[in-house]
Amino acid sequence: MAMPKGAQAFPRSEYLRRLTAVKSEMERREVEVLVVTSPANLTYLSGYTSKSGYVPQGLVVSLRDEEPTFITRRMDAPAALHQMYIDRGNVIGYPEALIANPDRDGYDAIIDFILDKGVGHRGIGLEAKLLPALTVEKFKSRAAEAKIVDCTNAVTWIRGLKSDLEIAMMREAAAISDAGMLRARQVIRAGVREADASAEIIAALIRGTDGKPGTDIASFFLCSTPRTSTCHIRWTEEVFQQGSQINLEFSGVRHGYTSPLMRTMSIGKPSDYIRRLHEGEVAGLAAALAAAKTGNTCSDVAVAFNATLRKHGFEKESRCGYSVGIDWTEPTASLKEGDMTILKPNMTFHLMLGNWIDEDIGYVISETFRVTDAGGEPFTKLPRELFEI
Amino acid sequence: MAMPKGAQAFPRSEYLRRLTAVKSEMERREVEVLVVTSPANLTYLSGYTSKSGYVPQGLVVSLRDEEPTFITRRMDAPAALHQMYIDRGNVIGYPEALIANPDRDGYDAIIDFILDKGVGHRGIGLEAKLLPALTVEKFKSRAAEAKIVDCTNAVTWIRGLKSDLEIAMMREAAAISDAGMLRARQVIRAGVREADASAEIIAALIRGTDGKPGTDIASFFLCSTPRTSTCHIRWTEEVFQQGSQINLEFSGVRHGYTSPLMRTMSIGKPSDYIRRLHEGEVAGLAAALAAAKTGNTCSDVAVAFNATLRKHGFEKESRCGYSVGIDWTEPTASLKEGDMTILKPNMTFHLMLGNWIDEDIGYVISETFRVTDAGGEPFTKLPRELFEI
Repeated sequence: MAMPKGAQAFPRSEYLRRLTAVKSEMERREVEVLVVTSPANLTYLSGYTSKSGYVPQGLVVSLRDEEPTFITRRMDAPAALHQMYIDRGNVIGYPEALIANPDRDGYDAIIDFILDKGVGHRGIGLEAKLLPALTVEKFKSRAAEAKIVDCTNAVTWIRGLKSDLEIAMMREAAAISDAGMLRARQVIRAGVREADASAEIIAALIRGTDGKPGTDIASFFLCSTPRTSTCHIRWTEEVFQQGSQINLEFSGVRHGYTSPLMRTMSIGKPSDYIRRLHEGEVAGLAAALAAAKTGNTCSDVAVAFNATLRKHGFEKESRCGYSVGIDWTEPTASLKEGDMTILKPNMTFHLMLGNWIDEDIGYVISETFRVTDAGGEPFTKLPRELFEI
Repeated sequence: MAMPKGAQAFPRSEYLRRLTAVKSEMERREVEVLVVTSPANLTYLSGYTSKSGYVPQGLVVSLRDEEPTFITRRMDAPAALHQMYIDRGNVIGYPEALIANPDRDGYDAIIDFILDKGVGHRGIGLEAKLLPALTVEKFKSRAAEAKIVDCTNAVTWIRGLKSDLEIAMMREAAAISDAGMLRARQVIRAGVREADASAEIIAALIRGTDGKPGTDIASFFLCSTPRTSTCHIRWTEEVFQQGSQINLEFSGVRHGYTSPLMRTMSIGKPSDYIRRLHEGEVAGLAAALAAAKTGNTCSDVAVAFNATLRKHGFEKESRCGYSVGIDWTEPTASLKEGDMTILKPNMTFHLMLGNWIDEDIGYVISETFRVTDAGGEPFTKLPRELFEI
């Protein structure tokens, strides 16, 4: 029996729209065939979210074909048949002999496929900066006639601009993020283990809300006293104390799309210092959103935030956000002074105002928003509170 | 106030033992300074599990110093101070100016540090195959006098051989894997959403067992009818049906250490075909464990499994396992025919007998074991059942 197609995250027309944008960029770069290997770009162009990126695989986009072709390990091909909108014939599973083989690997299967297409002297685009050096060398030597063109982040820049369908998906993810944060407020109590609270919050992120479950687990950080100056630890085996501060960062996930959210909680009254920092950051958040309108730059948003925070007597060392979407961070536009990327409607950013000031002081708040003509429109419906428990 | 040291996963003496083995390998390879960048190797040599590997960072092991030095983004330094056994002075946070900077990045901070040490004409070891090509070039051009030596997997091979302390940690992870599987058997029912069952199982993996919580979330796969031929999807938004088969793969995590486990469940009676496949695989599992004794090779284990499965009328295309430990797979020894790695006591493997035979047939069973003189000793205490619900 053949693997049936599963429910698709987006209609075929949406994927073809994305492909059209990618093909236009390929023409601009004189690339005949583009090999997409970054997992997030692969999801973007195909709907595929299965976790097979631990072995070589690639979505081959050709100017001559309407649909791309996906080449992956044979055991992962059924997931592609199930999840992708493309025709069965455009999913190719390469044999197990290419796994843990020092001489030939899955990239050879991709190169074989491209050479069979007869690319000749034309361009082959690679996400070269994300590939192992040996893989790029292999393309250069095996497709010696062709011109290898670095297309790292070419697709990533295109997916920076979301469609309304994608915005709707990110709103679903945001509703799950909100549900997770509300669950956190319920379960964080003095005497509770950090791990047990995390189990409850993560379960809420998977169950989702409004009949829509989370479809994956994204990054999750719970950094509590005395670790509020850390930003990327999961949780510890310890128990919350009266007076503990808890910094949370996580996201609901819908078909790859994230909408990250950060909030700070305090078991009992927070210190005056943290309260003042919170007020400065919330004012900065509002100023940043006001500046995040069509035609302004990423830099303008950062300047607005930094100037406001400074008026409150604080500084934030790190950038105040980044482009966000599938698999969280898009390594393209940064909300930092000097990033002259011009904001367009439906660009989406994680306005990430985590501020780790000293070894015993850290505070977090963030919202994910889309750019509109009137400014940044956040997806969260949560109040900008320092939640006191 | 300074960040206090957290509870350590292992005593300092254990880390120094590991470092001694690494330094001995460095001498053999004529490497004066080794830059460890793989997150699992970093955990192995320092106890660090914070998720800061999204930016350049490295643990610099020098033959001249007892302790290594960790160089990371400034905002991630407090987590290192908290989690690592090393002296405060050996954690260096590089400035935010090196983030999203096209000219200089965190690797420049690492190179600056090494050049300051005066490595001269001696060797600098890199995990080169895991680094971006541009980074390796940067080391070669900035440390032009030194000899750049590829040390990819040098530390990985050393950590393949576990200490008794590590085996104890993997047993803790295994107990959590078992608790997760027992929870799965309780919550998987006709009419339940796959996502809701997954939320319960993952929460159980975080809560842990015997007073020891899971310290992280590892990979998690739930592939149910009609998707039993897929192997790497999370879960879907659908509901289990009477007659559904569910293939599960996950692991508890203790301080980075995993002990993966796979089992197949069936809501109602499984088909005769799946029942026969299960019997063949269980027989193969026993044969593989019997062959997994000191002095035999990885290949011997695969031959024993394959021969037994064949007697039952089945074949498995993919390798039947791999070295396992911190962050799951160690990309070193494979349980496959032709891998002549000689088994030593306390090597640990995931005997991964997932068998995705056709587009509508897949079955999974696996156990994580350690090598002993008497054969493979599994960590799970679960029966080798096809769980009927």
